[in-house]
Amino acid sequence: MTAETTSAAAATPQADLLISDVTALVHGPDGAVDFLPGAGIVVRDGLIETVAPMGELAGVRAARTIAGHGQVAMPGFINCHTHSPMVMFRGAAEDVSVVDWFNKKVWPMEVNLTPNDVELAARLACAEMIAAGVTTFADHYFSMDRVATAVDESGLRANLGWTFFSSEGPAGLARSADFAREYRGAAGGRITTALAPHGAYTVDDDDLRATARIAQDEDILVHIHAAESRAETRTSRGNRGLTPIGVLDHTGLLEGRVLIAHGRGVVQEDLPLLARAQGRVGVGSAPKGYLKNGTETTAVRSLVSAGVAVGLATDGAASNNTLDVWESLLFTCLVQKAVEEDELWMTARQGLHHATLQSAAAVGLAGQVGSLAPGHQADIILVDLSGPHTQPIHDLASTLVFSARSADISTTIVAGQVLMEGRRLLTVDVPAVAQALAPRLAALTDVSHGRSIQDYAAHP
Amino acid sequence: MTAETTSAAAATPQADLLISDVTALVHGPDGAVDFLPGAGIVVRDGLIETVAPMGELAGVRAARTIAGHGQVAMPGFINCHTHSPMVMFRGAAEDVSVVDWFNKKVWPMEVNLTPNDVELAARLACAEMIAAGVTTFADHYFSMDRVATAVDESGLRANLGWTFFSSEGPAGLARSADFAREYRGAAGGRITTALAPHGAYTVDDDDLRATARIAQDEDILVHIHAAESRAETRTSRGNRGLTPIGVLDHTGLLEGRVLIAHGRGVVQEDLPLLARAQGRVGVGSAPKGYLKNGTETTAVRSLVSAGVAVGLATDGAASNNTLDVWESLLFTCLVQKAVEEDELWMTARQGLHHATLQSAAAVGLAGQVGSLAPGHQADIILVDLSGPHTQPIHDLASTLVFSARSADISTTIVAGQVLMEGRRLLTVDVPAVAQALAPRLAALTDVSHGRSIQDYAAHP
Repeated sequence: MTAETTSAAAATPQADLLISDVTALVHGPDGAVDFLPGAGIVVRDGLIETVAPMGELAGVRAARTIAGHGQVAMPGFINCHTHSPMVMFRGAAEDVSVVDWFNKKVWPMEVNLTPNDVELAARLACAEMIAAGVTTFADHYFSMDRVATAVDESGLRANLGWTFFSSEGPAGLARSADFAREYRGAAGGRITTALAPHGAYTVDDDDLRATARIAQDEDILVHIHAAESRAETRTSRGNRGLTPIGVLDHTGLLEGRVLIAHGRGVVQEDLPLLARAQGRVGVGSAPKGYLKNGTETTAVRSLVSAGVAVGLATDGAASNNTLDVWESLLFTCLVQKAVEEDELWMTARQGLHHATLQSAAAVGLAGQVGSLAPGHQADIILVDLSGPHTQPIHDLASTLVFSARSADISTTIVAGQVLMEGRRLLTVDVPAVAQALAPRLAALTDVSHGRSIQDYAAHP
Repeated sequence: MTAETTSAAAATPQADLLISDVTALVHGPDGAVDFLPGAGIVVRDGLIETVAPMGELAGVRAARTIAGHGQVAMPGFINCHTHSPMVMFRGAAEDVSVVDWFNKKVWPMEVNLTPNDVELAARLACAEMIAAGVTTFADHYFSMDRVATAVDESGLRANLGWTFFSSEGPAGLARSADFAREYRGAAGGRITTALAPHGAYTVDDDDLRATARIAQDEDILVHIHAAESRAETRTSRGNRGLTPIGVLDHTGLLEGRVLIAHGRGVVQEDLPLLARAQGRVGVGSAPKGYLKNGTETTAVRSLVSAGVAVGLATDGAASNNTLDVWESLLFTCLVQKAVEEDELWMTARQGLHHATLQSAAAVGLAGQVGSLAPGHQADIILVDLSGPHTQPIHDLASTLVFSARSADISTTIVAGQVLMEGRRLLTVDVPAVAQALAPRLAALTDVSHGRSIQDYAAHP
């Protein structure tokens, strides 16, 4: 840089990135989804500085400009509940009952895991999510220090929680808490953390109470499977006289910030409890896998009525087969219309609201991600709608939800860093990762040892 | 060509195309879906000549070779029921009830159609289908001579039927029949035709009887909306003491070959009627739009139990928003598991059976399309599974149904002609078509004239 340009830059400080002439998905003052055509997005220090009509940005100078003409800019997708390393088991537990999925397939296969497998698989998962426009994911798994390595390298943003069961004894919670303390703020602030008790039916009340205390004392999110299904709710009521949400309340968890995975078993008596925790509690819904299970979906309308943020999720690829949140958006809109038998409910714009502001709130990042608004993280995807399947455009929200798909994303940006451009992944070498994982597959899926990481008790 | 190569070619007749070293989706003697790795596919005169391990094809010489290594070859998808030109209304009738969809949106908008609009929109639809790996589609619309032009130019295969209502008087059936006679065998045999009465509730018994007579006398398929919904079945029972399938039987249609769109209202008393017509009757199911409507899905298990071929379909893009049969395959597998509450039903392989042999039978082309088997049309797609969302592969059928998507198709071939290669469309200029359609959109969606092509009576 010459002295002259340094001086000019000092006079008009240069932005890091300008995305020019896009149609930007923005939120109105009430949070409603809207679109601003002919917009420019200015990024500085990893944050969105300005979103404005190009005419108002004539004076902006940027180190780099991405020509967005003909594309739509959206906040990156937020995957509110996944087990990212389970991509290693994608397709390895098909056409089985839920009980067999746990007891004959997944939990015995997970005995075989090494930390190295987790890191390799997490890297593959990060690649898949970047390609699908996911810029933040909430992950609940084992060997999370190795997942953190993959997140750091890939450039993604994540909330990470180390899963524990009470069957592990006190070491489980201790490790989950140590991880949450050590890694919060890692990867230049892109990593936040959670305490991750597996579920209200696999972690006992004492451990849940201890989790609640740590969470509130140290302001850490709790990420937990609860009210996964109506069957779980029935079992819980029968066994202990409380619904799973009642258990969260009873053990103090609802006094802090909680991300509930699934919430399909939420019933009427849970709604006042959830309404009291409004603003602190969110739910991650992964509707594709629920269909595949042949079971009910998340009670979105009830949750929304209680003021609970319902975010979109994929769960792990061993049940969902993809980590594609755009697919979850499509399924949420379609399945919600179907289960409510109401074609006017869950419009495309409502779906986009869940995908953006509600997902951000669910993972505890409201005001930081999920909106192309000044001061928010520059987590941005660009979508190319020139394909025959997205033409013509009569209603952009409908085009995005019902016609477009993640393969239409050209560009994925996290904290101002471009992670995919022209569909080319810049931070993960997929062939190398797939090649490294291949020789491990036979051993990973071998269940001849007859062991399991945990027993799954059916909820009859 | 020198005398020498001519002589060599005469000694070993050269094939037109060799697709080398693919994993081929094939059907066993009982029709079950299977996979043949390391296969070569030899194409001559538009037909599949051989599908065999590469080792057995050492002597094959071909004018052109496509290197298939690392890809899966599948029969092209068959869209068993669509209104292809309705892509012009994609997203123009959202979040409305079924009654409003017909009476306030689609049927008033269709007043505005010109034959030129139909041709332009059909061209866009053909592009979308080629990109989605659809190689055959069954279309039911107006100005079908113009759709035939688009089919001819695009290189696709189609069964075309000119829609009629009894409200048009005798001219409706006459035009549908004239079209069916004139265009069968057009586009070098790629076009077959159908008689296309709109539905069992919009065409009267006399017209249905006349349709049945022509169909049987001249061996023409009848493509009709029937038992579209349970509500239609209830209304039909109430008004005339017959289910819609009963009406097809009563008017003689089930004595010939019939393609039924939707079949969601098929009830127990219909099953013996359908079983008697086994081998002649098929159903096209478009599950994405049913979810969007907030209504029930096709009664697949009942239909299969009656021996009816259930093919996959998209319906028009005004309800389905895409013409992507791969999406219909995914939705069929997921929704069937959900509605039957049976996670072991509609496995990935069952879904692929519907997508291939059953879809071919449903559109009246059994033995001609839908299988990579000698003597079948060379309608072939190649799928690239190297993306992060399709790795690793533990179960190829599951990968294809639950993880892959139409954007993973690299190559689409119809009758041996390559229509898409490396995702580049070779026969349709999408930007030119979209540009030509754009100035017509305002006029096409204008309903201020207050007219409609037909009234839709709700089925309460």
